Amino acid sequence: MATISKKSQLMPASAIRKLVPFADEAKSRGTKVFHLNVGAPDIKSPTVALDAVKENTLDHISYSNSAGLIELRKGMVEKYYRGIGIDIELPDIITTVGGSEAVNMALAITCDEGDEIIVMEPFYTNYNTFCFMNGITLKAVHTDIRSGFQVPPVEAFEQLVTPRTKAILLSNPGNPTGTLYSKESMLALGEVARKHDLFLISDEVYREFCYADEPHFSAMHIPGLEQNVILLDSVSKRYNLCGCRIGCLISRNPEVMKAAMKYAQARLCPPIYGQLAAIAALDTPPEYFDAVKQEYIARRDLALRRLNAMEGVYSPVPQGAFYTVAEIPVDDAEAFAKWMLTDFRMDGCTTMVTPAKSFYKTPGCGVNHIRLAYVLDLPLLDKAMDVLEAGLQAYPGRTL
Amino acid sequence: MATISKKSQLMPASAIRKLVPFADEAKSRGTKVFHLNVGAPDIKSPTVALDAVKENTLDHISYSNSAGLIELRKGMVEKYYRGIGIDIELPDIITTVGGSEAVNMALAITCDEGDEIIVMEPFYTNYNTFCFMNGITLKAVHTDIRSGFQVPPVEAFEQLVTPRTKAILLSNPGNPTGTLYSKESMLALGEVARKHDLFLISDEVYREFCYADEPHFSAMHIPGLEQNVILLDSVSKRYNLCGCRIGCLISRNPEVMKAAMKYAQARLCPPIYGQLAAIAALDTPPEYFDAVKQEYIARRDLALRRLNAMEGVYSPVPQGAFYTVAEIPVDDAEAFAKWMLTDFRMDGCTTMVTPAKSFYKTPGCGVNHIRLAYVLDLPLLDKAMDVLEAGLQAYPGRTL
Repeated sequence: MATISKKSQLMPASAIRKLVPFADEAKSRGTKVFHLNVGAPDIKSPTVALDAVKENTLDHISYSNSAGLIELRKGMVEKYYRGIGIDIELPDIITTVGGSEAVNMALAITCDEGDEIIVMEPFYTNYNTFCFMNGITLKAVHTDIRSGFQVPPVEAFEQLVTPRTKAILLSNPGNPTGTLYSKESMLALGEVARKHDLFLISDEVYREFCYADEPHFSAMHIPGLEQNVILLDSVSKRYNLCGCRIGCLISRNPEVMKAAMKYAQARLCPPIYGQLAAIAALDTPPEYFDAVKQEYIARRDLALRRLNAMEGVYSPVPQGAFYTVAEIPVDDAEAFAKWMLTDFRMDGCTTMVTPAKSFYKTPGCGVNHIRLAYVLDLPLLDKAMDVLEAGLQAYPGRTL
Repeated sequence: MATISKKSQLMPASAIRKLVPFADEAKSRGTKVFHLNVGAPDIKSPTVALDAVKENTLDHISYSNSAGLIELRKGMVEKYYRGIGIDIELPDIITTVGGSEAVNMALAITCDEGDEIIVMEPFYTNYNTFCFMNGITLKAVHTDIRSGFQVPPVEAFEQLVTPRTKAILLSNPGNPTGTLYSKESMLALGEVARKHDLFLISDEVYREFCYADEPHFSAMHIPGLEQNVILLDSVSKRYNLCGCRIGCLISRNPEVMKAAMKYAQARLCPPIYGQLAAIAALDTPPEYFDAVKQEYIARRDLALRRLNAMEGVYSPVPQGAFYTVAEIPVDDAEAFAKWMLTDFRMDGCTTMVTPAKSFYKTPGCGVNHIRLAYVLDLPLLDKAMDVLEAGLQAYPGRTL
């Protein structure tokens, strides 16, 4: 009998989606599940984007250029990136199938099998998955919950650098932590990249979700690092268009873009309808972002106030994205998250959270950490926190 | 300075798109270019599919299940596959980002780095690209233009089998040849797969484009080979929805589907709007396919009559898809194809064809072969053939 590849057997399954069957079972028993476990916002997409698709007059949905429609690339360069002070030209950008493809492409562009990437833990778990798929070793610099998951001194990075290290990969603001990196931190990481000839791969899909006073400082803003920086971006979170599967990869390094084009041509083109939505989304009025931002700030404030008022719970206040990582008083956050679905309910409801262990590379880290996405409106979020608090009190593996 | 991976440097660029800059230059000089070089049909997508997207009422484009919307998978199983005698259940199918992702996934599922795949040459060049990306060695069984590119005796396959051989990959009907494989040929290949514990990966995206009297015989129809067959499919060609980027991977082997789901989760989900179009396309009336088929038969007949009437040109009459491979009287088909764009025009027009060398693995094969896609309407196709014929007469590297 034909057997599948070892790679496929060993490939990690999505830790975030692992508990979904238990949530489905809970729902089938009539339990209402508050989903704080996935970064799937409940906010409407911009009307201009939705209308552009509804009003399209295409009578034949053919391939676009592998790099994406020229209107989209030109629009992103001139309307979006120029507006946030990132000056790039048309050859510096390629449209991808979501931010996910951009991550995978950046890894393939920079690393051969056996090469190494440095990331800060906790990190987006699919970084690990894509590294695994490409045969890349992911090495983690630990960041501490008590320090708000901020960037550690550069020595922590430098001591991980080997001749096989090819890049530093980060997300800013961060998933799962919501941490926003300062200009100083980004410049320091830029120096590490420059000194050791590394690529700096910056995943900035949450850029529009910054709640600090200072503006977001992009890796593209680091002076003199043009040949090292690869920017990964997406319309998914910015415009609540996750299902369009439109992202992009940006670099001023022509070798990087030449390679990106080869990978892009192999999969022919990004989805057309999503590109139409993304083109129109460039004209989203500023009020849309203002309203979204105010809403997320209110949600963050509520979630963090509630969390930190729970006995034995600690979470730093995130300055970006719509996630936070919290330490909770349990023996094993994965067992707790599962128990919430299988054994607990309050007023017919339960709350689903993501155990954070899989966001860490260092064994033993994050065992009592969870990630929460504040993607529910305020009344639902408040109720979800009531349920979480009660669950923590009732959980048999409580450590307090 | 940071340097890109060796893999990315060595990655083959798309041979099909390599000549595009020369076509662009020709157009900028005012030359009309007849594109017989890409499989991008000029035929309208089904109205039901276009309308479903225009009339959608989604106000938030969020992620779908990683396997695709349940309505799409259920619809494909019950409406499409059941209709063509392929009985599968919901867990046997996963929606992919076009047929391209299905190819890439099937290779990753079946092969580790260093493993081997057997294909028949000439083959779709991206098979080679995806093998390269996955570190897989592609081994080619030669098929002969004078035998209509039909499947050679099984010995030709068996002598290539090594302990590292994991699968036979084929497309039926074939790109670039348009060859349709008989039931007997498919059963014979099935026996090779069974005997050597290989997967049989069958790319059937051109299934609806069969011009022979007997019905298409799918790899899924081979009795007793359930655990070995992986079917790759797409809505791109069937419904002229290439830009939707919706395909699927089908297998009755649960280990294959479990692995497919892990790869699917890593990239989150297939595009939503494309899925809406694909769901509606399942209700495309039969008249649509009848009309498309009649049109392609007329085009094929014209193209083949014209080609085989040209001095020194030979092409077998294809029974499927909308391609044909022709032998032409030139020293180097790539130089000829480029020359047609840079140096030749007739009545202000030129014809663009694809040199077929890159469809072959065996060195020296296909040097005087071209692939033609008959994707223009009859008057344009006839004119394109006039131009091609005149070009062949005028070409300095003509061998007659």
